Amino acid sequence: MTEADLLALLRALPLHPGARGLRDDAAVIGPYVLTTDTLVEGVHFLTHDPPGDIAWKLLGVNLSDLAAKGAEPEGVLLNYPLSDPDWDRAFLAGFDDALRAYACPLIGGDTVTLPSGAPRILTLTALGRDAAAPSRTGAQSGDALWVTGPIGDAGAGLAIALGEPGPSELLAAYRRPVPRLAEGRALGPHVHAMSDVSDGLLLDAARMAEASGLAVAIDLAAVPLSPAYVAHRGDTRAARISAATAGDDYQLLFAAAPGYFPPVVAARIGAFATGSGLTLHHAGEPLPLPATLGYEHSPLAPVHLRP
Amino acid sequence: MTEADLLALLRALPLHPGARGLRDDAAVIGPYVLTTDTLVEGVHFLTHDPPGDIAWKLLGVNLSDLAAKGAEPEGVLLNYPLSDPDWDRAFLAGFDDALRAYACPLIGGDTVTLPSGAPRILTLTALGRDAAAPSRTGAQSGDALWVTGPIGDAGAGLAIALGEPGPSELLAAYRRPVPRLAEGRALGPHVHAMSDVSDGLLLDAARMAEASGLAVAIDLAAVPLSPAYVAHRGDTRAARISAATAGDDYQLLFAAAPGYFPPVVAARIGAFATGSGLTLHHAGEPLPLPATLGYEHSPLAPVHLRP
Repeated sequence: MTEADLLALLRALPLHPGARGLRDDAAVIGPYVLTTDTLVEGVHFLTHDPPGDIAWKLLGVNLSDLAAKGAEPEGVLLNYPLSDPDWDRAFLAGFDDALRAYACPLIGGDTVTLPSGAPRILTLTALGRDAAAPSRTGAQSGDALWVTGPIGDAGAGLAIALGEPGPSELLAAYRRPVPRLAEGRALGPHVHAMSDVSDGLLLDAARMAEASGLAVAIDLAAVPLSPAYVAHRGDTRAARISAATAGDDYQLLFAAAPGYFPPVVAARIGAFATGSGLTLHHAGEPLPLPATLGYEHSPLAPVHLRP
Repeated sequence: MTEADLLALLRALPLHPGARGLRDDAAVIGPYVLTTDTLVEGVHFLTHDPPGDIAWKLLGVNLSDLAAKGAEPEGVLLNYPLSDPDWDRAFLAGFDDALRAYACPLIGGDTVTLPSGAPRILTLTALGRDAAAPSRTGAQSGDALWVTGPIGDAGAGLAIALGEPGPSELLAAYRRPVPRLAEGRALGPHVHAMSDVSDGLLLDAARMAEASGLAVAIDLAAVPLSPAYVAHRGDTRAARISAATAGDDYQLLFAAAPGYFPPVVAARIGAFATGSGLTLHHAGEPLPLPATLGYEHSPLAPVHLRP
């Protein structure tokens, strides 16, 4: 079954009007936005990642979807598989710290046992409030494309987690992504479309353009890189392509009117126009698209139901 | 780690006021109630259970928690692990039927891949509205204890699913439990406490008494059995104990003033009094408590976070 087949089946189910056709990061139900993300051991995190970091990541990726809708966290539900007591204690200590850091209380959840040897699967569902809730479908021709911060750190951090030598701050970007909640709140009421960058900048930008029925052009030279990334990987064109196609960044990507200047740190990296598809250039020089735009979904790879 | 240790850790996390101290079937957030349940292959369902039935069960057990709060379903979020196309199609066909049967739309979700050979883990989160939301802690001394229908069918059905010969209607009670939504709506505003019977009648009744700071006495002779159960297992005292300690019934258990007569089919099976603990009798003759009251939680067995 391809992703398109699966999504067609899911979209044929009876959908809530707030589900936005399963095309957005979150659903809008009454005064709330709702999102859910599952992390699987061996797929979304590594077996040897510290349990406390996995808790931070689980909360971070879910709150990032709330950030993309401009929401304040109301609370979360946790579906938790019991394992060994030391792992459980370390996970819950990290989860406690992370909940307090984001002033996000626990609403409820469920705990289960897994058969012996089964990979851990962690699900979190996040409820947000006071959301402007810009969709990913609202970009307009002529809009500028912006991103709130450095791209590629988490991708480099994953390589470090897998054994490559490298600085701890890149590893931290992979293990403890920071949801851009304040940025989302400030931007939400003013932008035309917004999503987070979870699967890769080029892929998420292409999806926003497609969902909005537009073409988008991105200037690779304008994509912001962190000093740590440049020190570690360099600032070559290949390093920039690698950053722009890695996932797990959790910056916010947004479309806004050409005259809009965002009240938060952000880089202007492209523009929307009539037409379709993604084009890439480097300060005006056309570039071919890379073979993959991000964390592409094979028929059996992770897929977001959007929301 | 014991269940008590785990719950102590969870209750020490920052909790939402609507979490009800993680002591209820569902949380109450603004105009909504929220609940989530995870089903694990080999723990909550059998590998050879039909995928469509698993979908009905996943929805049924979650909507049962909404029923226990007297709520109407607003919608659900699905966290789904992709597996093989035939299984996925059969699951989604059953899920489609079940959503339509309960007029419950899909709000969103997430799909993931599991490492090869991993057991399937399915999570559903249900949102309900217009709930009277009786807690499980509100029983009063002198209240009668009621249950909305036959007990034990699903326990007998599990034995049939595992290979024992038996009638299809008991198997169906195990595989497609029916949430008592209409009963919950009718009862919600009038009862003092309500929960569903998920882990066993005696265990869930003992929990309600403990949560309410009371003792409860149950008349085993008054526990309703279905004609199919009696035909299959008989109506001996042992058959009644077996029914009252099996799980997965998903009837509603409620405490109400002694003069209250419920507007739905229900059996009066006991009474609350000052004190603590569960006592059992058979039409007045005292009975010893069985060794287990229901689906007891070993330190690594499934545990509900309540909600």
